[in-house]
Amino acid sequence: MAETGILLLQCPDRKGVVAAVTTFLYERGGNIVHADEHQDQQVKQYFLRLEWDLTDLSCSLARFTDDFASLAREFGMAWNVTRSSARPNVAIFVSKSGHCLADLLFRHQTGELPCRIPLVIGNHEDLRRLSEFYGIPFHFVPTDAEGKATAEATQRELLTEHAVELVVLARYMQVLSDQFVAAYPNRMINVHHSFLPAFIGARPYHRSYERGVKLIGATSHYVTKVLDEGPIIEQDIVRISHRDTLADMIRKGGDAERAVLTRAVLWHVQNRILVYGNKTIVFS
Amino acid sequence: MAETGILLLQCPDRKGVVAAVTTFLYERGGNIVHADEHQDQQVKQYFLRLEWDLTDLSCSLARFTDDFASLAREFGMAWNVTRSSARPNVAIFVSKSGHCLADLLFRHQTGELPCRIPLVIGNHEDLRRLSEFYGIPFHFVPTDAEGKATAEATQRELLTEHAVELVVLARYMQVLSDQFVAAYPNRMINVHHSFLPAFIGARPYHRSYERGVKLIGATSHYVTKVLDEGPIIEQDIVRISHRDTLADMIRKGGDAERAVLTRAVLWHVQNRILVYGNKTIVFS
Amino acid sequence: MAETGILLLQCPDRKGVVAAVTTFLYERGGNIVHADEHQDQQVKQYFLRLEWDLTDLSCSLARFTDDFASLAREFGMAWNVTRSSARPNVAIFVSKSGHCLADLLFRHQTGELPCRIPLVIGNHEDLRRLSEFYGIPFHFVPTDAEGKATAEATQRELLTEHAVELVVLARYMQVLSDQFVAAYPNRMINVHHSFLPAFIGARPYHRSYERGVKLIGATSHYVTKVLDEGPIIEQDIVRISHRDTLADMIRKGGDAERAVLTRAVLWHVQNRILVYGNKTIVFS
Amino acid sequence: MAETGILLLQCPDRKGVVAAVTTFLYERGGNIVHADEHQDQQVKQYFLRLEWDLTDLSCSLARFTDDFASLAREFGMAWNVTRSSARPNVAIFVSKSGHCLADLLFRHQTGELPCRIPLVIGNHEDLRRLSEFYGIPFHFVPTDAEGKATAEATQRELLTEHAVELVVLARYMQVLSDQFVAAYPNRMINVHHSFLPAFIGARPYHRSYERGVKLIGATSHYVTKVLDEGPIIEQDIVRISHRDTLADMIRKGGDAERAVLTRAVLWHVQNRILVYGNKTIVFS
Repeated sequence: MAETGILLLQCPDRKGVVAAVTTFLYERGGNIVHADEHQDQQVKQYFLRLEWDLTDLSCSLARFTDDFASLAREFGMAWNVTRSSARPNVAIFVSKSGHCLADLLFRHQTGELPCRIPLVIGNHEDLRRLSEFYGIPFHFVPTDAEGKATAEATQRELLTEHAVELVVLARYMQVLSDQFVAAYPNRMINVHHSFLPAFIGARPYHRSYERGVKLIGATSHYVTKVLDEGPIIEQDIVRISHRDTLADMIRKGGDAERAVLTRAVLWHVQNRILVYGNKTIVFS
Repeated sequence: MAETGILLLQCPDRKGVVAAVTTFLYERGGNIVHADEHQDQQVKQYFLRLEWDLTDLSCSLARFTDDFASLAREFGMAWNVTRSSARPNVAIFVSKSGHCLADLLFRHQTGELPCRIPLVIGNHEDLRRLSEFYGIPFHFVPTDAEGKATAEATQRELLTEHAVELVVLARYMQVLSDQFVAAYPNRMINVHHSFLPAFIGARPYHRSYERGVKLIGATSHYVTKVLDEGPIIEQDIVRISHRDTLADMIRKGGDAERAVLTRAVLWHVQNRILVYGNKTIVFS
Repeated sequence: MAETGILLLQCPDRKGVVAAVTTFLYERGGNIVHADEHQDQQVKQYFLRLEWDLTDLSCSLARFTDDFASLAREFGMAWNVTRSSARPNVAIFVSKSGHCLADLLFRHQTGELPCRIPLVIGNHEDLRRLSEFYGIPFHFVPTDAEGKATAEATQRELLTEHAVELVVLARYMQVLSDQFVAAYPNRMINVHHSFLPAFIGARPYHRSYERGVKLIGATSHYVTKVLDEGPIIEQDIVRISHRDTLADMIRKGGDAERAVLTRAVLWHVQNRILVYGNKTIVFS
Repeated sequence: MAETGILLLQCPDRKGVVAAVTTFLYERGGNIVHADEHQDQQVKQYFLRLEWDLTDLSCSLARFTDDFASLAREFGMAWNVTRSSARPNVAIFVSKSGHCLADLLFRHQTGELPCRIPLVIGNHEDLRRLSEFYGIPFHFVPTDAEGKATAEATQRELLTEHAVELVVLARYMQVLSDQFVAAYPNRMINVHHSFLPAFIGARPYHRSYERGVKLIGATSHYVTKVLDEGPIIEQDIVRISHRDTLADMIRKGGDAERAVLTRAVLWHVQNRILVYGNKTIVFS
């Protein structure tokens, strides 16, 4: 696979925007290898993800980006350009449950997840061995003993130190402070173990069991200040029946959790997600 | 297919109940052709659906039922016995939207839905033609003009007149009074156009659209006094994306609605459903 | 919804094609409301579906199309332009089984399927009543009595007379001659009642039952000379278990059949499908 | 959870078999906690899985089993009795691909898979580290150098030495000899990376890509002498589109592979599977 440039943009929808962008690219020798776009008629916004072969681009990507800035200004674009070879730094927060972490680390090792994972942070020691097996340093930051504020200070120092660009809460089970959340806007992904907005908050499997639902689900979303209300990235479900105990539901639900979290992280590090309002666009 | 007897029962779980029931059947020459049972360890209840060939039963089914009553008393069973050839009377309530009705009537006509449908009741005239094409008398009972109380009086008279045993709300869009609901306990099935308990109440598709969910769903349930809180019979989902408009969601969701409603009605008229607490057991 | 123009094109992938097309459109005042494209790196082909508001197009669509022809020549495009208001003429062929037909006609009536259906052709009389209820003339063309050749001659006359642009085989159960098939290249859609290429040919449910599969499926595809080998448009599956009899499989499979056939017809009449090699691209 | 006894049986269907078995159990103080049964009307066979609390069984399980033998003889049963606490010895065969192995070992470690895994056998060294991380001895048995016959001799010695009761081929990629297969009848599980019987044999993803299917699948089955023709245990699918490259299909299909293999192994070690003819019954 040749290296590609990836442009992700959003702007008010108006005539000529596609022509302007594609002509800009064509004039610089860019060969599009993948494109996906979206027009939201209701909010009159245009969204684009464009990927082009860097091999025969007639200028450097830095120069390309500089030049693009003025076009972007003209159309009022929010945008960014990255290389497909870029590997963002991702930190994973965990507690005791390892099914999501195991899946993320295995896929990272095989190369399926194109990112760096400089650290795992756990508020229990349970997942140290697993992290270290995959060569990822594990940092134990307890949340009980000295309180959440102290823990968050330590966590944020670690994130800064490792230049972390995406925080993944892999069944972390702790609510982070508004300040912490605000520091990673659209760059902190959580998995909630229900089909949101059903069973927002604590113990969704218990409440699913009580309610007698026939499907259980899981949701990955960006974290915002309001619990479980952030932009949804992915959802999936598992069929259950009256035969399933609470323990069965927790076990089967775990498969949906890891699936939706892994997909969300993959799409984020591939620069496939745009957030607008409280929704996401996931480009194919 | 030979005609079968169907026993549906629930009782406190205790040793010997299965042996007692199956021995009772064996002594009367009954050959089991299908059985499904469930033990709920948490509430210590036993549930059974038993189907046996009536051909070589050594006594009449009436006699069988009389005899079974004393065994049932001994074990504290709630139970009933029906014939597979029985055809319960089902009334369908509709408003303007015909996708659920069309599916129910088509399957009724092919023989897939083993019930009688003596009438369709609509609060608009829109679905008269469809009903009558399938040979089902359509009764127009407006809900606006003279008020809900008058309408319900007329509706209940019609149900009584036709000895209706199951009321199906096929996107009826009206909330029935507590008195009406109370008259059909576990015998009134509604379809809600969301994945309950998400989006309880009005306009679930609009709210799904606003929330930016990635799956939409539908739920069929028995109607109870509390809106959208009755025992869930079946749920299903359809995957959507940022490309789907509200209109797309309504259209795609309609497929899930008719699927879960049709399955619920089928299972009910096949005597496959037991309700306990606020949950259902759907026997295979 | 404003009326739109729809451009569907395929050409060798090369730099500048997107810029050329979108600039062409921009110069004529076209405002893109939906676009989906695809680059197949392996065969080096580019595929595009473009939809733009006709309201403020600065020329007639006829003129637009004429002008586009020279651009198309330059890039070696296979292409066509249609209006979203166009309603292609669709003929439906049936035998005795009505579940696919009922679904197509119901959706046609509600406006969900944007096409004209000037006729239904059946080799049995069974579905006349259903067709006529929906206002579609039914033509009985028996295939047994006078042989297939005579039947096909009659059928082709009917298709010509009604200027039919798409033939839908809705569980028609007869193999059409090569000549007939050749007259409707990529314009004849069949539904096969298996997950192709599993169970090609006759009696797929019987063979699924014998094989003991845990999922059954259905496939809609364009018809080519080789039986069940044409370009696949859509597939879906239904989960089954050891409890399902052959009759259950036929019933449950029917739901998958109508789902994949209806989607295929919808996508075709919305100009969403491009065929290349033996594959389809289905634009979103 | 209290320890349970598990009876798995198959016999010609005749009156009184359920009564006989449940009365036998009742007379020995057994309290049924789970039961699932099946009557196949076509082959006139009866199938049962019964689970009862051992706490208050009035005799030892050994005695129970001895006594049951004569009842079993009377009804011509094929049967076995196990304890829920039993942990069968499972060997996993691998090649280079680790996604199935990683899932099996992770779930084994969490206790979700109730078996012992005394060894992993690989014909490449790639998965030694993963196996040993989970505490499972890894045996490298090359298949190239000295030929398959030598390899099989070594493998079979290892299996005998560790009293292996179930062989799991977790993307092993080698065809085993008839003799080997015959030594583990209904005790060797393979995962095939297609929706069988579609794409039997080599390179199913390549052929799926060529054929242009819209769903890809995976199948777990017991191994028999005829390649990919053994009794199917579980199947699942993943939706794909024209955008998916061969590499995407391999990646996405891998998720279905591990899902169907893990479920098959789980059900086997929980004594949930009965094979008859070339089909399986999977008890709930």
